[in-house]
Amino acid sequence: MTMDLTFLGTGSAYPSPHRGASALVLRTEGECWLFDCGEGTQTQLMKSQLRASRITKVFISHLHGDHLFGLPGLLCTVSLQTNPNPTQALPCLDIYGPTGLRKYLRVTLGLTGSQLIFPYAVHELETLPDQSPPEGQLSFEMTSESGALHPQEQLGRRVSLDVSTDCYMLFQDKRFVVKAFRLFHRVPSFGFCVQEHDRPGRLNTELLKELGLNPGPQYGRLKAGETVTLENGRVLLSGEVMEEAIPGRKICILGDCSAIVGDGPLKACHRADILVHEATLADEQQEKAVEHGHSTPKMAAAVALACVAQKLVLYHFSQRYKPCALQKEGDDDDILLLKRQAEDALQGSGVDVTLAEDFLTLAIPLKR
Amino acid sequence: MTMDLTFLGTGSAYPSPHRGASALVLRTEGECWLFDCGEGTQTQLMKSQLRASRITKVFISHLHGDHLFGLPGLLCTVSLQTNPNPTQALPCLDIYGPTGLRKYLRVTLGLTGSQLIFPYAVHELETLPDQSPPEGQLSFEMTSESGALHPQEQLGRRVSLDVSTDCYMLFQDKRFVVKAFRLFHRVPSFGFCVQEHDRPGRLNTELLKELGLNPGPQYGRLKAGETVTLENGRVLLSGEVMEEAIPGRKICILGDCSAIVGDGPLKACHRADILVHEATLADEQQEKAVEHGHSTPKMAAAVALACVAQKLVLYHFSQRYKPCALQKEGDDDDILLLKRQAEDALQGSGVDVTLAEDFLTLAIPLKR
Ligand SMILES: [Zn+2]
Ligand SMILES: [Zn+2]
Ligand SMILES: [Zn+2]
Ligand SMILES: [Zn+2]
Repeated sequence: MTMDLTFLGTGSAYPSPHRGASALVLRTEGECWLFDCGEGTQTQLMKSQLRASRITKVFISHLHGDHLFGLPGLLCTVSLQTNPNPTQALPCLDIYGPTGLRKYLRVTLGLTGSQLIFPYAVHELETLPDQSPPEGQLSFEMTSESGALHPQEQLGRRVSLDVSTDCYMLFQDKRFVVKAFRLFHRVPSFGFCVQEHDRPGRLNTELLKELGLNPGPQYGRLKAGETVTLENGRVLLSGEVMEEAIPGRKICILGDCSAIVGDGPLKACHRADILVHEATLADEQQEKAVEHGHSTPKMAAAVALACVAQKLVLYHFSQRYKPCALQKEGDDDDILLLKRQAEDALQGSGVDVTLAEDFLTLAIPLKR
Repeated sequence: MTMDLTFLGTGSAYPSPHRGASALVLRTEGECWLFDCGEGTQTQLMKSQLRASRITKVFISHLHGDHLFGLPGLLCTVSLQTNPNPTQALPCLDIYGPTGLRKYLRVTLGLTGSQLIFPYAVHELETLPDQSPPEGQLSFEMTSESGALHPQEQLGRRVSLDVSTDCYMLFQDKRFVVKAFRLFHRVPSFGFCVQEHDRPGRLNTELLKELGLNPGPQYGRLKAGETVTLENGRVLLSGEVMEEAIPGRKICILGDCSAIVGDGPLKACHRADILVHEATLADEQQEKAVEHGHSTPKMAAAVALACVAQKLVLYHFSQRYKPCALQKEGDDDDILLLKRQAEDALQGSGVDVTLAEDFLTLAIPLKR
């Protein structure tokens, strides 16, 4: 199964003509999952190779405007681009994010009279006081929804922290388990871990037939790792006829943060194939970065090391950093500096560093 | 005083890479008034010659997302680009729009933890049942704000229809009177009339001194249009020493509509220098246009004629119409067709027709 990750916006704070606000898409066989949706995401989508109508799930890391202001408009445009199905109701679009997101959508879609062609549900993650300074916490009054559901809204779940894993179990399907974990930011923030199931090795049935062994209980024993003695006396090891297992891929996408919270992030991101982490400012500005709840390349690298990640992708850059292609010689703020700082911090670790840019697509190859 | 009008978005329904969602700016000596604010308006502003920090007033014609979804983000970016004044509080940013707008901003700014450097107030225009089909009316429950004001919010006015003029009096300052009037659309919609005060002729005091008349009560009589007899017996007519009055300019900007409502629009827009009117679809699609609460060029032309407007500017085009510069020979949908249809309908009337495009700036010259 092919998987890739496309960055639609890599700028922090607000969208600019050279860097969109936060949004990225994980695509797997035509299905697209959107992570964050800053203002202008729908236009960035139109400029990309992706189709808005393929978006089936949305994940919002935190409620800052540069990650959220594009969501009502995106839903309207996904709806406009979706063909009605006359014989069957369209599936529900699932949206995951912090408490308060349900009210945000209900009010914005409601007051603008926005009708969708499909149902949607907002599954809210309970935020905890250790995820932000006190002033970043929303009061119950602010987040509580009064009044009727939006006409296309289905009541979503309320997802609590699972204390045994220190993670939020969002869902699992045939292909993936998706969890969230806590981050520290000016407002409660989350990271998401998309873990593909391992693909167990298959029995090489063609080889077995050549060896004269027909389907039956012995197949099950070989699958279970046992040995089998053939009629001709040959002892067949499971390993001889089992293809190797393919470990599932793991993609971890962290929202804005100056720190991780609890054991959840390291557990969930352990051995991630790709760890997407913000790096808003350069190492020299760590104090300012942390004051605003953000990270520097060195801080991102430390998380990647602690997670034993294979590849670190930096994004969410201050708008002072122009994309490489637009930089002029002698520009004060060189985006490549951020890459070098992460690489320096990771020297000898083998962790690969990539700078995200708007419209960059990273293929995520099968592990073998 | 120089005045100009810049279109930041001329597309309907959603922003696309070739047409932004609705937004236009009336600029007068460095002060900018924003009319509608679809998603992406802040990015369009950055691409334009205008400065976000100069926006002092915002007018929202109706609550559809393609006219509103950009407002929370725009306010945040205006705030980021405004320098704090250490000695004096910054002035309040006034926002005018239909009932429901106050809650929209309070919830979106509140849940996203958006802090502004200046205060803002939302002055809500009462909507009436004759402005939309019943399903386009918002319930009291939907629009009523519960809970505290946003930290930077000042309580705005509630503006009711003035039955004698069939208009809403929004405000008047040294230079302008600004009114709103009702339009019919899928949801209640408004148009805005910006009327510059006439500039009364001034007394030519230099000439008077040459003639030997010094300041005194006779100046007042001349100003009032009376005649004065000089000491040498010469009879001085008021017209000889009064400069000519300069009539104020009138700019009228209509939100989405398939019809005007009541007498207000024609009264307010009478002899407008510029009438900005939507033309979402071509005349051939009038039925579809009206069904969606929109107009065709012919319908826009009829309003311009009824108002005796000098210049009709069309905007809010279906995204099927590419900008002139991007059209290819043989393209099915030719934006110039919309212009021709309006011109045909206005033949012989002397009304000039202009197609708006993103980033078009129209100068509005003094009347003489
Ligand atoms: Zn951010
Ligand atoms: Zn943030
Ligand atoms: Zn519209
Ligand atoms: Zn509309």
